[in-house]
Amino acid sequence: MRCTGDIEVRDLEEMAINIDPIQAGGRLTADAMKAVIAYGDGYSVCDNCRKPFRLDRIKRPPLDAFHRDLARFVNLDEARVMPGARRGFQAVADTYVEKGAPVLLTALAHYTEFLAIEAAGGVPREIPKDGRNLVTADAAAGRIEEVTREFGKPPAVLFIDHFDYQFGNEHQVREIARNAHSYDVKVMYNGAYAVGILPVDGKELGVDFVVGSGHKSMASPAPSGILATTAEHARDLFRTTGARGDLTQRQFGVKEVELLGCTLMGATIMGMMASFPHVRERVKRWQEELANGQIVIDALRSIDGTAILSEYPRKHTLTRVDTRNSFDRVAETHKKRGYFFTSALADRGIGGIIPGATRVWKFNTYGLTRLQCEYLASAFTEIARENGIPVG
Amino acid sequence: MRCTGDIEVRDLEEMAINIDPIQAGGRLTADAMKAVIAYGDGYSVCDNCRKPFRLDRIKRPPLDAFHRDLARFVNLDEARVMPGARRGFQAVADTYVEKGAPVLLTALAHYTEFLAIEAAGGVPREIPKDGRNLVTADAAAGRIEEVTREFGKPPAVLFIDHFDYQFGNEHQVREIARNAHSYDVKVMYNGAYAVGILPVDGKELGVDFVVGSGHKSMASPAPSGILATTAEHARDLFRTTGARGDLTQRQFGVKEVELLGCTLMGATIMGMMASFPHVRERVKRWQEELANGQIVIDALRSIDGTAILSEYPRKHTLTRVDTRNSFDRVAETHKKRGYFFTSALADRGIGGIIPGATRVWKFNTYGLTRLQCEYLASAFTEIARENGIPVG
Repeated sequence: MRCTGDIEVRDLEEMAINIDPIQAGGRLTADAMKAVIAYGDGYSVCDNCRKPFRLDRIKRPPLDAFHRDLARFVNLDEARVMPGARRGFQAVADTYVEKGAPVLLTALAHYTEFLAIEAAGGVPREIPKDGRNLVTADAAAGRIEEVTREFGKPPAVLFIDHFDYQFGNEHQVREIARNAHSYDVKVMYNGAYAVGILPVDGKELGVDFVVGSGHKSMASPAPSGILATTAEHARDLFRTTGARGDLTQRQFGVKEVELLGCTLMGATIMGMMASFPHVRERVKRWQEELANGQIVIDALRSIDGTAILSEYPRKHTLTRVDTRNSFDRVAETHKKRGYFFTSALADRGIGGIIPGATRVWKFNTYGLTRLQCEYLASAFTEIARENGIPVG
Repeated sequence: MRCTGDIEVRDLEEMAINIDPIQAGGRLTADAMKAVIAYGDGYSVCDNCRKPFRLDRIKRPPLDAFHRDLARFVNLDEARVMPGARRGFQAVADTYVEKGAPVLLTALAHYTEFLAIEAAGGVPREIPKDGRNLVTADAAAGRIEEVTREFGKPPAVLFIDHFDYQFGNEHQVREIARNAHSYDVKVMYNGAYAVGILPVDGKELGVDFVVGSGHKSMASPAPSGILATTAEHARDLFRTTGARGDLTQRQFGVKEVELLGCTLMGATIMGMMASFPHVRERVKRWQEELANGQIVIDALRSIDGTAILSEYPRKHTLTRVDTRNSFDRVAETHKKRGYFFTSALADRGIGGIIPGATRVWKFNTYGLTRLQCEYLASAFTEIARENGIPVG
């Protein structure tokens, strides 16, 4: 069905149970959809922008209060909205990373961290993961020491993903932050898979910067996200411009350099703000989300030859699964080849897995109801049974 | 009226003739609104993202074709979408400006250019404007020579706003570009008030980079914009990542460093794309827009004591006007003081001017019909007459 021109209507969320690994936390709430419709126009939030002319000072709509709410939400002192989590990484890297300086991230770090460091001229160094695909505080401490020896100075920043994008495994953020601080290394917490779906407490974790993604985990339109920090670091990270026109002597007041002034002036921030009351509540139901996800995990584990590659028991709804010895075996001889599996899922109204995937793939049950998870679980075992795979 | 929570419905565009200086070109088309509704969810355009996993390679929705259309639209070789024009300035500055290197911009440059240069560590130097608030090719050449003497090397880049944000004056882009190139200086064209509302031909102007704003001039949600360049410069500006995980040996394929990978993954790019067929047509009607605007300009000029501060005749629909000797005189004794003027406009269904403004202010008639411009013109003269200002 056409939406307009050569654009089709997108109806995945309406027509299917979507288990796409990256889309689950970014579905708009109904309130966000209302706000996006009311504030769709370009600079829609600027109607009542008054001195000092900055997004986070606008009172109508109450963007100023929203910014305070965001800081409180991750329990840090100051927060700003950004065009995606990656732009938060960039702001941190640009502020703290000198050309040629080492920066730590992990063997499971997202590519956008690498790019932010590369753009700032830093040299990325990975903290290894262990055999269970976990990044430990010991590994972090060891790598801080190695890098310090190699460069003659400690890493400028350590980037740590609370839950990584590959396995959805939880890493030792609290302990890593403690170790890093003992070496005087700042800690940048990547909460792209955390902020907005589970409780995040920046002070309790002891991190210096918290980045979250609006379109990944805060039920918001893309690109959106947050960057939060402590009062101490806000002075540098959110520094205001020192630029001056050499002929006109123009200065630019309270505009923040790393934000390039205002960031999200319309639909994106309004979507975030309208979803926020729901987001704030939903993080409290994280255990329920995990319990629902477990129903699906149990089903997959009951299928002969199927392995959960993510840590077990699961601490996140994003999971990596290996079906090379189950569904991929079927694909070898099935007339639809590798497409039999996603096609069988599609027949059951389940979408979000790359067509043809039968080997190693990821899925995310976040936001599905218990009933939907039960349905999904039985769909997996049914497809297995129909194709002669033993289900235990 | 409430939209949701403590968010009011925004109905400025429905309830008033909006002459806000920055909002005119960013009102969504009806098709953009449809697309924003269909693709509101976070990562909505990623349903069919396949290898090599990059926004501008997605075929469904046809983002790949849209990127090619955008390049053609500004007649350059390569284009990318960005989270606002400012992020385009940043990409150019980060790529070409070394720490401490001089960068030229103009006495009428937008603050976001200063911030992009500051973030990259460059030293901004202004090209002066002349007595008519125009930036000439001679002034640019003179400043290139001065700066070259001062720094011992030519400026890394010259930023030029085709139409500036203060007066909406047209500057000598073509001639400035020719001069800059004769000194081997790259030219970054700021088309925030041009791309999407009037014809822009990058090759014909002879510029190296074209930046446009989606939310300012392409009927798109914020933050959005484009960054286009020649095949020659695309290699540097859109360079793909060279980062590698030192332990895992991970590499990140075709992800572009300055874009930090993908930029606009949902409502923003879909709004841009749905508006694009309309935008491509509307630029051809620029002369009509100017003629409609002239009706309002004529009315303001007929009000005793009112001066058009922008160049005259007008070449843009954004205009700066001085009413210190007309409406501001009335404000001195009016019982509503300075608010009488915007209040009288509001009574007539006209919005978009900062409440209380009676001295020097800006307005934009872009997108208004001839009838609306006639109505606006008569509103200004009526308010003048009612308050005893002679209308000639």
